[in-house]
Amino acid sequence: MKAKLTILGCGSAMPTMQNNPSGQLLEMCDKQFLIDCGEGTQNTMRQLACKTARLYNIFISHLHGDHCFGLIGLLSTWGMMNRTQDVHIYAHSDLERLLSPLIAYHCQGMSYQVIFHAIDPKKHAVIYEDRTLTVTSLPLRHSVPTCGFLFEEKRKERHIIKEAIDTYQIPLAAIPDIKAGGDFITSDGRVVHNAELTVEAKEPFRYAYCSDTGYKPAIVPWIQGVDVLYHESTYTDEHKDAAERFQHSTARQAAKIAKKANAGQLLIGHFSARVIDQHIFLKEAKEEFDNVTLCRDKTTYTFS
Amino acid sequence: MKAKLTILGCGSAMPTMQNNPSGQLLEMCDKQFLIDCGEGTQNTMRQLACKTARLYNIFISHLHGDHCFGLIGLLSTWGMMNRTQDVHIYAHSDLERLLSPLIAYHCQGMSYQVIFHAIDPKKHAVIYEDRTLTVTSLPLRHSVPTCGFLFEEKRKERHIIKEAIDTYQIPLAAIPDIKAGGDFITSDGRVVHNAELTVEAKEPFRYAYCSDTGYKPAIVPWIQGVDVLYHESTYTDEHKDAAERFQHSTARQAAKIAKKANAGQLLIGHFSARVIDQHIFLKEAKEEFDNVTLCRDKTTYTFS
Repeated sequence: MKAKLTILGCGSAMPTMQNNPSGQLLEMCDKQFLIDCGEGTQNTMRQLACKTARLYNIFISHLHGDHCFGLIGLLSTWGMMNRTQDVHIYAHSDLERLLSPLIAYHCQGMSYQVIFHAIDPKKHAVIYEDRTLTVTSLPLRHSVPTCGFLFEEKRKERHIIKEAIDTYQIPLAAIPDIKAGGDFITSDGRVVHNAELTVEAKEPFRYAYCSDTGYKPAIVPWIQGVDVLYHESTYTDEHKDAAERFQHSTARQAAKIAKKANAGQLLIGHFSARVIDQHIFLKEAKEEFDNVTLCRDKTTYTFS
Repeated sequence: MKAKLTILGCGSAMPTMQNNPSGQLLEMCDKQFLIDCGEGTQNTMRQLACKTARLYNIFISHLHGDHCFGLIGLLSTWGMMNRTQDVHIYAHSDLERLLSPLIAYHCQGMSYQVIFHAIDPKKHAVIYEDRTLTVTSLPLRHSVPTCGFLFEEKRKERHIIKEAIDTYQIPLAAIPDIKAGGDFITSDGRVVHNAELTVEAKEPFRYAYCSDTGYKPAIVPWIQGVDVLYHESTYTDEHKDAAERFQHSTARQAAKIAKKANAGQLLIGHFSARVIDQHIFLKEAKEEFDNVTLCRDKTTYTFS
């Protein structure tokens, strides 16, 4: 399994019978990432019995309430649970100013730190990096500064073929060079080409999260060839004008982006409360792009 | 029906599979009152399709997150719905300081006002009054300033017996005096005693909400004879020490208060996540007081 994505909420700003506001728990490279945190996110995680021992990093796309009102509750609960690992929040700088007084008041004596990392949603930049992956901000088109996020596994070194080690009596010291693509020279001076010694590591997994945004084909080069694209799909064709006015997308527009980007798979969400039959989103998206999944709250999708 | 109470959440601070944090929608005297507003309160109201057209007043018992983190989401949603009626929030003065910056940032251009009424949770005082009812604060015993609320219908005037109007030829102008308890003097000078002309109006309905609090018998005189008492019941006998340490009550203690106050009915809630089988709360409470109801989230109780 390359990654696992749990939809904690895929509704839009107005709460509905079936959808909570935005929240996703992404698990890849043995780490967990929370993407957006609408009201009720912690309750849903508890209902799903999500373990969050490896969740150190939270990414907030923008500061509309349906994407961040759940933060204070989650941070407060972690305080009560005597969490000790620090939490890093990547968001527009206003969030720190808004949230800090609440943390100071409601989370006194907390045994961990909340560390804010101000990001500029208007910039396309690497905002997080560790040994195995990077997260890049994807400037979107919305009524307040907003960015999506590209989670990108780093390319692993080539895998050495075990039999080749025996055949050519390769010493341990030579292996890092070979993994990095180098050839091997045997003790009798023969050159063994790297292609005989190694195989390509599997393609790095890439997940793009794009919510909230009007139709913006300019993001396509940044997400070209992603394995999975989550793209907001607030409206159906019927409300195309509303999509333009409020800087959201229709399901069809989401699918057009997926097609242009040659995405492996499209997940759609952020559904407007106006649309009662959500299968219309799926139908309209599928007219543009085949591999579409209509997100459901409290559902985990695995990517292998 | 005298009143209707919808439990939006009756869990305690830690979210659980079965309970949301505190929130209640009380309907009496043709008005609606929101009592506490933990995270997810608005989502639950939406799931239950609660109409809130007559909800103008919100009462917050104290500023622990599980009693107030849902406010900003609710206020923001009302803004998006173009609500025009003002909302009055009765709470400790710190709430205004904490919430105002969030309202200013997240609810720009809102078409209604949020009006804060600072209450002193340490005082037993009438904090709200209108033509038909009063709300009185009930100082409780907790780790931060906390009060419960007594919702009390005003006593109505005596009902005039229709037949008496014909029998004694009572003119319209004399009726207010008679309703207020006065006798009637006929045109030939005969005194008709009020008891012949009127009947007592039904007893005013009284609802007391007491959460969060350690065992505090001193509240009994304030809630003597209430029709319905909601009393927190965070722990069972097994965790009696925790109840004392964290200034909460056991189910048994809640029932003792109900018994001393001669309450008509006891509702228990604010259940700790530690207790898996909630029937233990009911069992232990019933050993002290017979008419106990174990609250359930998303359930409406009617009182007639």
